[in-house]
Amino acid sequence: MIGLTLGPEGPQLTRDLPRPAADGEAVMRVSLAGVCATDLELVRGYMGFAGVLGHEWVGVVEEADDPALVGRRVVGEINASCGSCPTCRAGRPTHCPHRTVLGILGRDGAFAEYLRLPATNLHPVPDPVSDEAAVFVEPLAAACRILEQVHVRPGDRVVVLGLGRLGQLCARVLALTGAEVLGVSRSRHKLDLLPPSVRPVPADQAVGLPPADVVVDTTGSPAGLADASARVRPGGTLVLKTTVHEAPGLSPTPWVIDEITVVGSRCGPFAPALRLLAAGLVDPTPLITARLPLEQGVEALARAARPDAIKVLIDVG
Amino acid sequence: MIGLTLGPEGPQLTRDLPRPAADGEAVMRVSLAGVCATDLELVRGYMGFAGVLGHEWVGVVEEADDPALVGRRVVGEINASCGSCPTCRAGRPTHCPHRTVLGILGRDGAFAEYLRLPATNLHPVPDPVSDEAAVFVEPLAAACRILEQVHVRPGDRVVVLGLGRLGQLCARVLALTGAEVLGVSRSRHKLDLLPPSVRPVPADQAVGLPPADVVVDTTGSPAGLADASARVRPGGTLVLKTTVHEAPGLSPTPWVIDEITVVGSRCGPFAPALRLLAAGLVDPTPLITARLPLEQGVEALARAARPDAIKVLIDVG
Repeated sequence: MIGLTLGPEGPQLTRDLPRPAADGEAVMRVSLAGVCATDLELVRGYMGFAGVLGHEWVGVVEEADDPALVGRRVVGEINASCGSCPTCRAGRPTHCPHRTVLGILGRDGAFAEYLRLPATNLHPVPDPVSDEAAVFVEPLAAACRILEQVHVRPGDRVVVLGLGRLGQLCARVLALTGAEVLGVSRSRHKLDLLPPSVRPVPADQAVGLPPADVVVDTTGSPAGLADASARVRPGGTLVLKTTVHEAPGLSPTPWVIDEITVVGSRCGPFAPALRLLAAGLVDPTPLITARLPLEQGVEALARAARPDAIKVLIDVG
Repeated sequence: MIGLTLGPEGPQLTRDLPRPAADGEAVMRVSLAGVCATDLELVRGYMGFAGVLGHEWVGVVEEADDPALVGRRVVGEINASCGSCPTCRAGRPTHCPHRTVLGILGRDGAFAEYLRLPATNLHPVPDPVSDEAAVFVEPLAAACRILEQVHVRPGDRVVVLGLGRLGQLCARVLALTGAEVLGVSRSRHKLDLLPPSVRPVPADQAVGLPPADVVVDTTGSPAGLADASARVRPGGTLVLKTTVHEAPGLSPTPWVIDEITVVGSRCGPFAPALRLLAAGLVDPTPLITARLPLEQGVEALARAARPDAIKVLIDVG
């Protein structure tokens, strides 16, 4: 089968990949996949990953132990956990120290004709949800994760910094709480993509904003993180949705004096994300910047790396 | 009156201070006061404070609008808030942007014969609580603050790093939850001061400890903070009880991947601290390293700065 693989020479299209065997898991034929900032970081060497890239996808089950699953249109949680270690048994399977992660850690990903995941990771996609919407379930679940960790109240003021792939989804989900959500970006294009539920704030007009109850940093930059930290009110919450590998100017002193809570936030629950899509409460499809065939997978990564790109999709099926 | 003041030339005993006028607040005669790490930081120039130092104290009310208060033995919350700004009205008076803080910010402190505070800040001390115990109410309240912010469960494993003034109290309070509390220090002396409810762990034997559900950093050092961060289990909580002004090696990336919550924690509630003392559930008096008269206040600060010192008291009354 064909797949977009990452090796020592960078990402490339590989034509002679073996189709994955079920081997106790399920095998899916991929229909559509999405490029995420993490994919671009992996290409830059993050995590030392080698293999088929991609972890945002929708597809159809080809093989599974449960015959009722075969032929179903599904999406899938990306962490495959052992299920038996203390961390799994404590109800934190996404942090299982033995886990593999689709297209990120020890497991081939979704930028290929077929992928393999445990059947327990799969979620059937309701009929009203198109493939173009379903491919956003994984990042939309990551946005929902914030509301699992932080009690955002209807009267809160929320600031989302960075309006790329993930920030756009976080802003949409947080606005569903009734909170006043402000999206801050330097990019007019990204501000224009915000729905009516989110107030667009050009970065150069964000200086005088009052401190926020909750600030979500999706910038992935040290300067963005410092800016985010400075925007939290005393007693408020700073949510870190993107990794920042170095933060030379970061001082935790204001977090102590102002009793800030800093919440690291990663993968989220698929079921609520599917419900939001099925109910039409979040429409991610305006975020699609481009759609390229798998044969142009390398170009798709390059397209996603351009500053104006939001979501680049890879047509597989 | 006599007081220990901080000026441009450092701390000194000043003999001709005016006794504070009530002016709508209450005036207390100080009996006993305690030296805190913050006092030592103020001496080093932190916050740019000038005036009478000291914020841990017990004393007797001399003047107050409410005649029932006069003659009562009291302790007092250190933040004097405006009561009318949005932050105060939102129930966060300790973060009032217009606040003064006893001996720390815009308000003379407790290392003097008399001090002044709003009557609403005062808490009568129950008879069974000695002056030597009552003088610990402010830092004990700061330890209780952790349990207002973080749900520490009886089955949790908790690590307290740094067993100085504040760490000793945090370890004692956290052990009351039934959690397994480990106190880590390089100092044999500080480990020996731990009560039976806290397991002493010499720092050189702390390498192989399993990750903890909750880690409390009271070290006040960048290396201590990095060590604390590395000891939190995925999904766990890092509590920052001391300020670290620079943290050059600090990377927030593990906080995102492991979904760590970082909680800045400062001043706490006096009523629970007084209850713990009155019930004998926390006995802070073994932490008293030395007790010097106010006349030797400068020496008391020097004594408190020595690495082996836990709590140095200043006898005022």
